[in-house]
Amino acid sequence: MKTDTETALSASAAPLSTAVILAAGRGTRMKSERPKVMHPLAGQPMLRYLIDNAAEVFDRIIVVAGPGMDDVAALAAPHTVVVQHDRLGTGHAARQAEAAFGTGDVAVLYGDNPLITPGTMRALLAQRRSDDTGLALLAMEPADPARYGRVLTRDGLVQRIVEWADATPAERAIGLCNAGVLCADAADFRRWLGEIDNDNAQGEYYLGDVVARAVAEGRRVRAVVAPEDELRGINSRAELAQAEACVQARLRLAAMAGGTTLVAPDTVFLCADTVFEPDTVVHPHVVFGPGVHVRRGTEIHAFSHIEGATVGPDAQIGPYARLRPGTDVGTGARVGNFVELKATTLGAGAKANHLTYLGNTTVGAKANIGAGTITCNYDGVFKHHTEIGAESFIGSDSVLVAPVRLGKGVITAAGSVITHDVPDDALAIGRARQADKAGYARVFRQRLKNRKEQG
Amino acid sequence: MKTDTETALSASAAPLSTAVILAAGRGTRMKSERPKVMHPLAGQPMLRYLIDNAAEVFDRIIVVAGPGMDDVAALAAPHTVVVQHDRLGTGHAARQAEAAFGTGDVAVLYGDNPLITPGTMRALLAQRRSDDTGLALLAMEPADPARYGRVLTRDGLVQRIVEWADATPAERAIGLCNAGVLCADAADFRRWLGEIDNDNAQGEYYLGDVVARAVAEGRRVRAVVAPEDELRGINSRAELAQAEACVQARLRLAAMAGGTTLVAPDTVFLCADTVFEPDTVVHPHVVFGPGVHVRRGTEIHAFSHIEGATVGPDAQIGPYARLRPGTDVGTGARVGNFVELKATTLGAGAKANHLTYLGNTTVGAKANIGAGTITCNYDGVFKHHTEIGAESFIGSDSVLVAPVRLGKGVITAAGSVITHDVPDDALAIGRARQADKAGYARVFRQRLKNRKEQG
Amino acid sequence: MKTDTETALSASAAPLSTAVILAAGRGTRMKSERPKVMHPLAGQPMLRYLIDNAAEVFDRIIVVAGPGMDDVAALAAPHTVVVQHDRLGTGHAARQAEAAFGTGDVAVLYGDNPLITPGTMRALLAQRRSDDTGLALLAMEPADPARYGRVLTRDGLVQRIVEWADATPAERAIGLCNAGVLCADAADFRRWLGEIDNDNAQGEYYLGDVVARAVAEGRRVRAVVAPEDELRGINSRAELAQAEACVQARLRLAAMAGGTTLVAPDTVFLCADTVFEPDTVVHPHVVFGPGVHVRRGTEIHAFSHIEGATVGPDAQIGPYARLRPGTDVGTGARVGNFVELKATTLGAGAKANHLTYLGNTTVGAKANIGAGTITCNYDGVFKHHTEIGAESFIGSDSVLVAPVRLGKGVITAAGSVITHDVPDDALAIGRARQADKAGYARVFRQRLKNRKEQG
Repeated sequence: MKTDTETALSASAAPLSTAVILAAGRGTRMKSERPKVMHPLAGQPMLRYLIDNAAEVFDRIIVVAGPGMDDVAALAAPHTVVVQHDRLGTGHAARQAEAAFGTGDVAVLYGDNPLITPGTMRALLAQRRSDDTGLALLAMEPADPARYGRVLTRDGLVQRIVEWADATPAERAIGLCNAGVLCADAADFRRWLGEIDNDNAQGEYYLGDVVARAVAEGRRVRAVVAPEDELRGINSRAELAQAEACVQARLRLAAMAGGTTLVAPDTVFLCADTVFEPDTVVHPHVVFGPGVHVRRGTEIHAFSHIEGATVGPDAQIGPYARLRPGTDVGTGARVGNFVELKATTLGAGAKANHLTYLGNTTVGAKANIGAGTITCNYDGVFKHHTEIGAESFIGSDSVLVAPVRLGKGVITAAGSVITHDVPDDALAIGRARQADKAGYARVFRQRLKNRKEQG
Repeated sequence: MKTDTETALSASAAPLSTAVILAAGRGTRMKSERPKVMHPLAGQPMLRYLIDNAAEVFDRIIVVAGPGMDDVAALAAPHTVVVQHDRLGTGHAARQAEAAFGTGDVAVLYGDNPLITPGTMRALLAQRRSDDTGLALLAMEPADPARYGRVLTRDGLVQRIVEWADATPAERAIGLCNAGVLCADAADFRRWLGEIDNDNAQGEYYLGDVVARAVAEGRRVRAVVAPEDELRGINSRAELAQAEACVQARLRLAAMAGGTTLVAPDTVFLCADTVFEPDTVVHPHVVFGPGVHVRRGTEIHAFSHIEGATVGPDAQIGPYARLRPGTDVGTGARVGNFVELKATTLGAGAKANHLTYLGNTTVGAKANIGAGTITCNYDGVFKHHTEIGAESFIGSDSVLVAPVRLGKGVITAAGSVITHDVPDDALAIGRARQADKAGYARVFRQRLKNRKEQG
Repeated sequence: MKTDTETALSASAAPLSTAVILAAGRGTRMKSERPKVMHPLAGQPMLRYLIDNAAEVFDRIIVVAGPGMDDVAALAAPHTVVVQHDRLGTGHAARQAEAAFGTGDVAVLYGDNPLITPGTMRALLAQRRSDDTGLALLAMEPADPARYGRVLTRDGLVQRIVEWADATPAERAIGLCNAGVLCADAADFRRWLGEIDNDNAQGEYYLGDVVARAVAEGRRVRAVVAPEDELRGINSRAELAQAEACVQARLRLAAMAGGTTLVAPDTVFLCADTVFEPDTVVHPHVVFGPGVHVRRGTEIHAFSHIEGATVGPDAQIGPYARLRPGTDVGTGARVGNFVELKATTLGAGAKANHLTYLGNTTVGAKANIGAGTITCNYDGVFKHHTEIGAESFIGSDSVLVAPVRLGKGVITAAGSVITHDVPDDALAIGRARQADKAGYARVFRQRLKNRKEQG
């Protein structure tokens, strides 16, 4: 989003700007029933990236969705959504938004090109507005130009886009490739879209034909060259994985630049919104879901899985810790192996180190949760709360049946089932006494042996 | 294996074809007591790949094993196995199979070159049978030809194989490298093998010397160029790891092409037989063992380990779920963190979400297995069965001592040990009552403190 | 460290040699409160590598630390530590060690260049001592020379170091780059250090200016070219991650060369001191901390985390096994999923396969630890010991309250809390009996349903 000052500036000095995001494609090669733009990257649908980034640059956003794509429409809200009912090509898709173009500049982006940055969008818009450019387009110079369409220029002006299939060897030797993203004045754009036809093998209206219309009118068309990484399309699950790798690489570099040690960056998966404070350490093989804030001095050990949690400062997490949404691990607290916390607050210096499940629980400062402790927070219908007082010591293999409140300094005996509240400083015990049957183990083994021999 | 039609065709129109797989090597550089060809790739011994792929192309397969390699012989069955008792080189190894060559064409493959595809085998055999080729061999054009032997050709005919050590600088500049795989008519092959000698530094009979014999007889020798990736040998654990990476890359691409999202393909390990239906999602850090079928709409979360299991449709698995052989997770069922299932069926919509071990268990539809539930399925000798009825609610930290049958709609109280059958709709409880000792926790802490101070 | 013979030789035949390690930098770009040289690689502070490697080559080591860097000083002990109180550049840092130079040869190394090998250090020292070299320096020929200073030579002698910023295009075209590491006779070094000034933009004393002093005196300066990988500096967390990757790659290759299968080397993280015997297998996604010895025939399954443990021979570990310091897993023993062992010995053939925590425990041969077994080894202040006799069978979900001793052949009933010693061959039981309340589950569900409907 723009700052107030930016908005004021653009309101006064510049014409309006509108981004049209084409998001109607089903993505046959994905072999999915989910709309292509809803497939996630770093935990967010790819369309989310385009909308958020475009919102930093453009005044208005229009999303062109396919029929029945309610999830796309819901994600796009409160921006304008128009529906493309027939699948007649990119040019046809852009025309669906025509009525909403308004005045000012219009850029057309692709929902399956989600890695394009605000900087590149700004450069495109600035190019359109500078010199006497009638149409600005994004181009790239990929290491392997492969079968991209080529951009033919003379004296810095685009003359023509030629598809790879139609290109001569000399044209194929050109390294400047078309990324398909265009920006023009709304009135021009509307007129050019009205002029393109579907007189081709597929019978589709191609957005790219707008370039020829602009040139034919004698308008100046200029290419803005952007990094290949930002402009790669996602048409298959393999390309989705490549884009994910690209997003993860950006997030990891940003985390390290901010003062986080990622011991093995390639094995750590971040979300777009993961926040690290400096002097945090993440060991190999850690996965972050949405909504995580890791405070200074905290160390996340291997095989941890964290989402919707605030952790630290100076906390020790894992290995094999699972923190689920609503978790807050306090200063210097520790969560150990095979421990799951959900909607749970762990006070400063508290510990839950082994084989534990705490759900809907508040644990006071310096409490110690023994190995194998389990809160019964669910009765099949309702979730109930457990409260464990500061400096309490929950014996191993305790079961806490919620709702239940254990006071400050409580001890529970190992193996106890706690079903009602325990006052401060009390010892709660709920288990049977041990009895031994001498020699009976030998008898039992003998019986098993006999049965085995009898087959 | 060939289809009936293919078999009929080859029986009528083509001579017989035989693949000889040299599998006698011990692989000194592996530093292993296991025969080299028994080291696994993607969960299968490397020899398995060669046998399966050769069986798609050749009528008969002969495996040359070393003495005492019973595991190789067992894997090769029912194909012919001959034993090479003395280690006198590849030419000597191939001669051991001579008596079994029969008539028709014979190709010699290497057990430690397991990545060669049926397509390449077919191309080799077709080359041998086309034109007037007397001997066909596989060659490659590696990015770095390094110290491979070079293939010298003139007018499309192989003139000579020259070892790197013997090659002139001009010969070393040749990019065509020898892969060692040969195909010839059985009678020719037999005669040429009989003519090669061991008059070299190692005192070994080299299969490659067959090429010189064929040329000396004036026969036409032709090279078939195949991708380097298929022809790389495995002589060390590092090369084994490279081959594993190559196999995994193939499997991952195939999974994604079929409509599975692999969020981070490089962190997911598949087996040669892993089956995914479309619209499945696999999160980072997941390992699949043999025998897994993942049904449509199923999501496998991070850190899961799955083998011998059928899952879904629309199931949610993990994170940290371990599914062992004999597991069937039903429609929309959920298996959560730190949960192990073995020989267990989870009915539609059933849930086992936390810290649970179910072995030899049948769980009915919509049952809920509480955190920390454990089935005692093993008495030290026998395994016993547990049955949990539909819509049952197993309280947290319950122990189910098998054999035991819980009816439909049963509830067990948290922390109960269930030792006998429970009728439908009953509540089963087997735990002690809680008692509190006021102030005793404080007393206990004081005692510990005193003892600590006393040292 | 040198062998006695080497020490004797160097004492008699060669002058003394001293390595000065500059370790005072704070590393602003790390954004850390920890001194840069204390950031770890493969589980050890980077300074550790330099000290250990230098100790193989040099007679004496001097570490130049910053003020207040007590952890650096502690790590450097018993080597000489001098403190650089003011941050006036690398030349100034080296001068702080001047008084400790003694006689013989002095090499100056950088604490943030920890990957330099003993071989390269030896080559540098040998160059200094051969021919009539007055000053030897390390250089490299990186794939991308980027902005490194260039080394200008004529007839094999270094003429000048030119910083990238000051270099002409012709000089920038030179591929030989300065690594900054120098070696000279102590007296020369002392004199040259005394001659350099801080007449530059930063107002710092640059160690590199020593080269110009040596040339000015007409001394022969020679460059030793070393691999780029050894000479890369660590100035940011991203560079730290690259160095970690480099160290891990070295360790993995060494492990594989020794006869260990790493199914997916890139997903296995080793420590500098991890020891593998041949014919061990490590599956994907395994993390080793310090102090691990894996014996022959042992297999470590995915998602295991092992530190301070001796394992095998022929043990099966994991998946999801966590072995903590003080663990010894015996011949053919098995540790399964979601199992944590700490300061625990598992006898030959013993098994702890599911959801278990054993701390400060000795388990006899062939004992079977049931799923969900937990030792209560901690009372909040003291740790206590648990002993489990050979061939015992610990029933599932048993709690063993330490200190406690279970004899040989003991059986505990599932779900028991064991609070006192159990004699050999006895059955110990400590749990409540099951009681069923017919139809009560239905009543309970109905109540929940009613409450839900009431909202």
